[in-house]
Amino acid sequence: MRIEIDPTAETPLYQQLHDRVIDAVARGELRAGDALLSVRQVAVRFGINVATVVKAYDALRQEGIVRTSRRSGSVVARDADSGPADERFLAAWHERLTAVIAEGVAHGVPQAELEARAAQIATAFAEARADNPPRDRKGNTP
Amino acid sequence: MRIEIDPTAETPLYQQLHDRVIDAVARGELRAGDALLSVRQVAVRFGINVATVVKAYDALRQEGIVRTSRRSGSVVARDADSGPADERFLAAWHERLTAVIAEGVAHGVPQAELEARAAQIATAFAEARADNPPRDRKGNTP
Repeated sequence: MRIEIDPTAETPLYQQLHDRVIDAVARGELRAGDALLSVRQVAVRFGINVATVVKAYDALRQEGIVRTSRRSGSVVARDADSGPADERFLAAWHERLTAVIAEGVAHGVPQAELEARAAQIATAFAEARADNPPRDRKGNTP
Repeated sequence: MRIEIDPTAETPLYQQLHDRVIDAVARGELRAGDALLSVRQVAVRFGINVATVVKAYDALRQEGIVRTSRRSGSVVARDADSGPADERFLAAWHERLTAVIAEGVAHGVPQAELEARAAQIATAFAEARADNPPRDRKGNTP
């Protein structure tokens, strides 16, 4: 999994790191059970503060995407094929989706373009996942 | 335009205020040229800090949704019918849309449900706008 971080971007670094992990899970590049790099490894690799990495991992943990394993440290807790989202997540996520769509609408994105973009993004994730199928515990695709 | 703010919610107050204004613009309840309540009025009405309102208005100004009019204070700068979004906005917004969709995918929202929700949200905004058409300068609908 390649991760790129742009220190000059407006988006805070912890948010970029958080979003990149979510993106990798949505694309199937990270699968449930996969170990993440340790906080220290990430900090060294990207030359960023340990606290920044902790903040990103904590957010992912709170969202149920990452869990702590005594053996492997931070581990991916779920992926797109781990079953349906829970209701509490769905309610909060629907609000965030509504807020982003409202932004597009307010800025004049036509409804057809908006729906086409959403479909195109979702399709790209599905296609990436088809190339990164779930693996069994030995790391082989079933 | 009714605005509700929930001081017990996880979402920061300035973000709630910001999102409510965007929502009202997307629904056509606020139209280009409409004056917003002054910072002080909003602070008093919701019993929140003036700095919180300033932060929300500043973000809206930076996004091009609000502008400062010497005569009327803070004014809605554009709405859904003010013409196409500019390219810089579109690029940043597409990234935010991608991030929210990735979140849904990672949490197991099926592609069909995701596209249906996006379409349903966009349709609700369009229907609300049909009930709140643009007005001319005297406040009459043309």
